Amino acid sequence: MENTHTNISELGEFGFIKRLQDKIKLTNKDIIKGIGDDAAVVDFGNKKTVISTDTLTEGVHFDISYTPLKHLGYKAVAVNLSDIFAMNAKPVAITVALSFSSRYPVEAIDELYEGILLACQLYGVEVIGGDTTTSISGLNINITAMGVANEEDIVYRNGAKENDLLVVTGDLGSAYIGLQLLEREKEVFKANDKIQPDLEGNDYVLERILKPEARGDIIELLAKMEVKPTSMIDISDGLASEIFHICTQSEVGCAVYEDKLPIDPQTVLTAQDFGMSPTIVALNGGEDYELLFTIKQEDFEKVKGNPHMSVIGHMTDKNAGVNLVTRDNTSTPLTAQGWDAFLKKEMDGKGEEEE
Amino acid sequence: MENTHTNISELGEFGFIKRLQDKIKLTNKDIIKGIGDDAAVVDFGNKKTVISTDTLTEGVHFDISYTPLKHLGYKAVAVNLSDIFAMNAKPVAITVALSFSSRYPVEAIDELYEGILLACQLYGVEVIGGDTTTSISGLNINITAMGVANEEDIVYRNGAKENDLLVVTGDLGSAYIGLQLLEREKEVFKANDKIQPDLEGNDYVLERILKPEARGDIIELLAKMEVKPTSMIDISDGLASEIFHICTQSEVGCAVYEDKLPIDPQTVLTAQDFGMSPTIVALNGGEDYELLFTIKQEDFEKVKGNPHMSVIGHMTDKNAGVNLVTRDNTSTPLTAQGWDAFLKKEMDGKGEEEE
Repeated sequence: MENTHTNISELGEFGFIKRLQDKIKLTNKDIIKGIGDDAAVVDFGNKKTVISTDTLTEGVHFDISYTPLKHLGYKAVAVNLSDIFAMNAKPVAITVALSFSSRYPVEAIDELYEGILLACQLYGVEVIGGDTTTSISGLNINITAMGVANEEDIVYRNGAKENDLLVVTGDLGSAYIGLQLLEREKEVFKANDKIQPDLEGNDYVLERILKPEARGDIIELLAKMEVKPTSMIDISDGLASEIFHICTQSEVGCAVYEDKLPIDPQTVLTAQDFGMSPTIVALNGGEDYELLFTIKQEDFEKVKGNPHMSVIGHMTDKNAGVNLVTRDNTSTPLTAQGWDAFLKKEMDGKGEEEE
Repeated sequence: MENTHTNISELGEFGFIKRLQDKIKLTNKDIIKGIGDDAAVVDFGNKKTVISTDTLTEGVHFDISYTPLKHLGYKAVAVNLSDIFAMNAKPVAITVALSFSSRYPVEAIDELYEGILLACQLYGVEVIGGDTTTSISGLNINITAMGVANEEDIVYRNGAKENDLLVVTGDLGSAYIGLQLLEREKEVFKANDKIQPDLEGNDYVLERILKPEARGDIIELLAKMEVKPTSMIDISDGLASEIFHICTQSEVGCAVYEDKLPIDPQTVLTAQDFGMSPTIVALNGGEDYELLFTIKQEDFEKVKGNPHMSVIGHMTDKNAGVNLVTRDNTSTPLTAQGWDAFLKKEMDGKGEEEE
């Protein structure tokens, strides 16, 4: 953060909005009106509009003591766009609603917006509206994302069929390990503020928690490969929880293979350092923002060997339930940790539940 | 509130979402998918989509000690739809993002949703998505509203021309007076909790602050009267502030007549009881959620005498500025209190600023 501190009230209402408008340049001609009126006006044309909303709350979704505001802004956009991609749609625009206490100076909000606008630029979306309000304490970032898709391209959670293959992108559990590292160094720093954080060599896991990417590249790739998933969801609460969402909505069971779970080597090592099972971390860590989808068996050849995708299981009859096939070839029922996670995360500051 | 207290975690994640889905029934066939997936899918057809977002924060926009949750839910929807109506558009759908601390039981969230769904039913909109998260403290309600309009019907803030007439709907300042009453009774109750609140005979001003309506009826009326405003805005921050928005964006000045300001008699009396000028209250009180618009002089005959509309002034040359013509026929420059209000309201718990 720059070493200047301008109180929001010094700018005045028009000054603040003007400042935002100067930062936010519209380039998409279908956005007829962006910020500056009661509402934005968008021409979504003949395609279907896909809409999602997500909130990041200080002390729950992020700890401001180790979260750079620019990354936070970037992440707030990415996690929202992740939901649009999970519908196999293309994001077009977002609205940004911020509430923050007066301890945040204008420069802090500028930094947050820098991250928001950087993400918008990279993902090709525009900020079309917002609401900025004070709060008693903390920072709350709500983003609503809108995208478009042809009706026949949209992928829901409820289309998985028995024998479909379960595929996940990227790798799992790294964001959770990044979070554990940050929490550990925070405790060390609290005990002795002369000790500098020891985070060297952990760039990947830290980036996964602080500045995740939404997998728009996968949506393009699937289109190019001519693979339309039968169901899809993004991984915010953890792989296990998302598998349960697909299984419940599609009315199928699932067998997931422990030895197929994609986990980054650094994540495996650091998990072991923490005395955690890498498998549990991959299943329940959450905040991966990878895509989880099912494909027809006949599409296996197209997906096989793709470095961005891992086939981790297959769908079964509903009555077989959701099972993890462990390395010793034993099948054990998997539990959705979504809400246990709510309880747990509420205590350690990560509670989230999404509709 | 019912005397039951169910902790959110008792329901489990699926239980909570299922509960919401059971409450939220989609009836609009253009809403292809509502809650329950990563995003909603809406067919906005050939019309333009109008989008707005607004947040209500505990301790800033409402005081939970005297705000019934059902009314709060209703209000959260109404203030968002007010922005859609202010574009001369018809609202279609909303997303609801809630964050709340664990001191709110399931029954409290149910009550909040009851109000949200009642408003949706009355205004003919549907809940198509949401996000429910924990927070460290307090309740934060963010709603994004979407509507449709034919491009040629949309009214912006920037279309007012010199000599246009300035029209406001309903009456002004009542919500602010309602708030003062609630604050006063809260102080009395804090001093002596045996004294019951004395709010009798104040139904109108209390309803104006606790359960305001968005003026969708006016949008229908204007269409029926074949009047298309040249500019329009809704009154959230206060009449003066909104006049400045129109004048700045339309590059015109304005003369507003004190004796034309529509103020409810009860509001006048109660303002005087509080030692406040009813004119100041009408100009700067805010939260009226009435519509402020400009019309061409030739439309005066259509509007004249309409009980829902008051002509309160006319637009002038930009260089003349924004002036209040007082009862003694003196013209004094008006000041936009929007941001002063941010400062003031931040102290007395009502900060708001909208883009």
